[in-house]
Amino acid sequence: MQSFLDVNAMRAWLDARATALAERDAVQLLAGLGRILAEDVVSTLNVPPHDNSAMDGYAISLAELGQPLPISQRIPAGVVPKPLAQGTVARIFTGAPIPVGADAVVMQEVCTVGEDGRVAIEGEVKEGQNIRRAGSDIATGAVVVPAGKRLTPADLGLLASIGVAEVSVVRPLRVAVFFTGDELTEPGETLAEGKIYNSNRYWLTPLLLELGCEVTDLGIVPDSLEATREALTDAADFADVIVTCGGVSVGEEDHVKAAVEAVGELHLWKIAIKPGKPFAFGRVGAADFVGLPGNPVSGYVTFHVFVRRFIEQRQGLAEVREPTVIKLKAAFEWSRADSKREEYLRVKRAVENGETVLARFANQNSGVLSSCAWADGLVRLAPGQTVAPGDWVDYLPFE
Amino acid sequence: MQSFLDVNAMRAWLDARATALAERDAVQLLAGLGRILAEDVVSTLNVPPHDNSAMDGYAISLAELGQPLPISQRIPAGVVPKPLAQGTVARIFTGAPIPVGADAVVMQEVCTVGEDGRVAIEGEVKEGQNIRRAGSDIATGAVVVPAGKRLTPADLGLLASIGVAEVSVVRPLRVAVFFTGDELTEPGETLAEGKIYNSNRYWLTPLLLELGCEVTDLGIVPDSLEATREALTDAADFADVIVTCGGVSVGEEDHVKAAVEAVGELHLWKIAIKPGKPFAFGRVGAADFVGLPGNPVSGYVTFHVFVRRFIEQRQGLAEVREPTVIKLKAAFEWSRADSKREEYLRVKRAVENGETVLARFANQNSGVLSSCAWADGLVRLAPGQTVAPGDWVDYLPFE
Repeated sequence: MQSFLDVNAMRAWLDARATALAERDAVQLLAGLGRILAEDVVSTLNVPPHDNSAMDGYAISLAELGQPLPISQRIPAGVVPKPLAQGTVARIFTGAPIPVGADAVVMQEVCTVGEDGRVAIEGEVKEGQNIRRAGSDIATGAVVVPAGKRLTPADLGLLASIGVAEVSVVRPLRVAVFFTGDELTEPGETLAEGKIYNSNRYWLTPLLLELGCEVTDLGIVPDSLEATREALTDAADFADVIVTCGGVSVGEEDHVKAAVEAVGELHLWKIAIKPGKPFAFGRVGAADFVGLPGNPVSGYVTFHVFVRRFIEQRQGLAEVREPTVIKLKAAFEWSRADSKREEYLRVKRAVENGETVLARFANQNSGVLSSCAWADGLVRLAPGQTVAPGDWVDYLPFE
Repeated sequence: MQSFLDVNAMRAWLDARATALAERDAVQLLAGLGRILAEDVVSTLNVPPHDNSAMDGYAISLAELGQPLPISQRIPAGVVPKPLAQGTVARIFTGAPIPVGADAVVMQEVCTVGEDGRVAIEGEVKEGQNIRRAGSDIATGAVVVPAGKRLTPADLGLLASIGVAEVSVVRPLRVAVFFTGDELTEPGETLAEGKIYNSNRYWLTPLLLELGCEVTDLGIVPDSLEATREALTDAADFADVIVTCGGVSVGEEDHVKAAVEAVGELHLWKIAIKPGKPFAFGRVGAADFVGLPGNPVSGYVTFHVFVRRFIEQRQGLAEVREPTVIKLKAAFEWSRADSKREEYLRVKRAVENGETVLARFANQNSGVLSSCAWADGLVRLAPGQTVAPGDWVDYLPFE
């Protein structure tokens, strides 16, 4: 056990060990939501496919402007127009293809249709006006969505717009979780004297699910070396990553440390982070082992600071996400600075006099998850940093 | 059709018409992720349930401090301790209950265990030191998570910690979507001359799914009044909200307007928003009707500015979410201000010299969703507002 390890050093250490999954799945477009794209998607067509109208109006030939002209055809979106007949205009609607021979569209608001059906045009008309050119938005051969991106609704819409019906995505990361401690009781059961409810399962599993992991929950493992070894080797059979909470500090009652060492390898740290501190990383067979602190708040914060980023790299996310840090004004005071550890306060955005400021949860001790449930992010403080109302601080949204 | 309606006025108009669902579902705790809590959850117990140790160390009685004392019992987490025997200390671990008779815990680092097994304590000890009091985090009767909250992983962890195994949540909002336009082709099919791929289905459906809606997709409806009427009445049979894209501007080819008016009621606006402008809201039977612009970028932005908030209110979210507005520095220039409309530029956060700034997508025209896929939020500009690099602007993250 070393002395305190710096947060950035821990992050860099984990970065070096996070290898992206190579296996892929082919899925229907809508099933790709939230998955990591495995290959660049290159457009096989131009968007728009043809020069088309940006307005409801009249397609005209500049050379023939001057006097009112008759309407020779009507071009709604979705039809193939005839070439523009000489000495005429075409009635055209937004999105409809420009007929050969037309070189501008005049919006209907500046046109007058006479009783004879002829269209008079007011004002100046420029070549190409109100025409969206073929390929001006997406050209054939362009990378539309890059490999390694987590697919969003807008990505799916964009891919659909170039006709993509199926995408190649990285297969889901398989994560096994288990929980140790004879004091743990499942919610819904009666709480015996000296026991506590298992809360870690209920925030850890959904956080992993939200990241798109395939989670296998091995349940509560009895506080014994043998049972913990068995849980670990069972998990290593199928999981890419094993995550557990608790059992990795120096306390004598912690069997997880000994069990991981017995069947794999383990590194333990005291991180210079509050809440947090104990953190473990190792290998069991081909699986990574991540040991979060057993305290729910410490575990929750540690997950956000280290584990989410590690998981995303294992999932094949191309851009290693630096924590989003936004400077916001504190509407709170914090005088109890920790002299040695980076501190993460649980905070929430609020609007004060039209300005976004940060409020902090009153009780910042790490006893219960109330602060995390209330918060929408963290304020990161350097060791020794205090806060007065009005100070600009580093805000890290949970996202 | 009125002249431009202000964005805030439109939002207020929709707020007045958004009625929260009353029906509830009882679900297992983990199935509550992302659902809206229907009733306050009140704690039936104290957290922690007993006074317990915040440290690994020794439980002592202040009155007996002075000379080294023998260890009379060992209290790991999860056991029920005996009262502290007079003239002794108890070995105690983090989370373990404090024995009757002990009034402080001394951390092991400042204790020395002699060869005779007696424990000597260095330094000052205060009453209650390192003891977490019963109910100090959550007291019996306290509201732990309020009704109307969308349940997060931290909420589920918090609820588990007080033994809640099942929650009462608002039933999912049923949303029907359909798409009109004879020019629409599904991705994967061959694109005939003059046709375009249907991209609106592929961003709209996932956005609604991400909000927790139960989405029924009625597909592409032919461009006819009769087919549109039929789709509307079919949808109104089961849906709480019907959403469609396109068909609600003044163009002659738009049947949606006429169809909604025929079977229900419709309001149409030109909103002072760019991209955007046409927007429709109405009723068909008991269902709300929302008509987004047919242009994908306009639809996507309009959804974020108006529809998400409306959906969330229908879902029963208690806090009407004001758009999150964060002031960030622009790392871009924007000179083509719209004089009449509020404008929403697609932007992305970036880090420049350690500071979070905003980059904008180069091509801000609304032809394709590339800008939305690339962006992580919007910059809101007042009519006429231009931007120079270094200006502070209103940033609205997509979240």
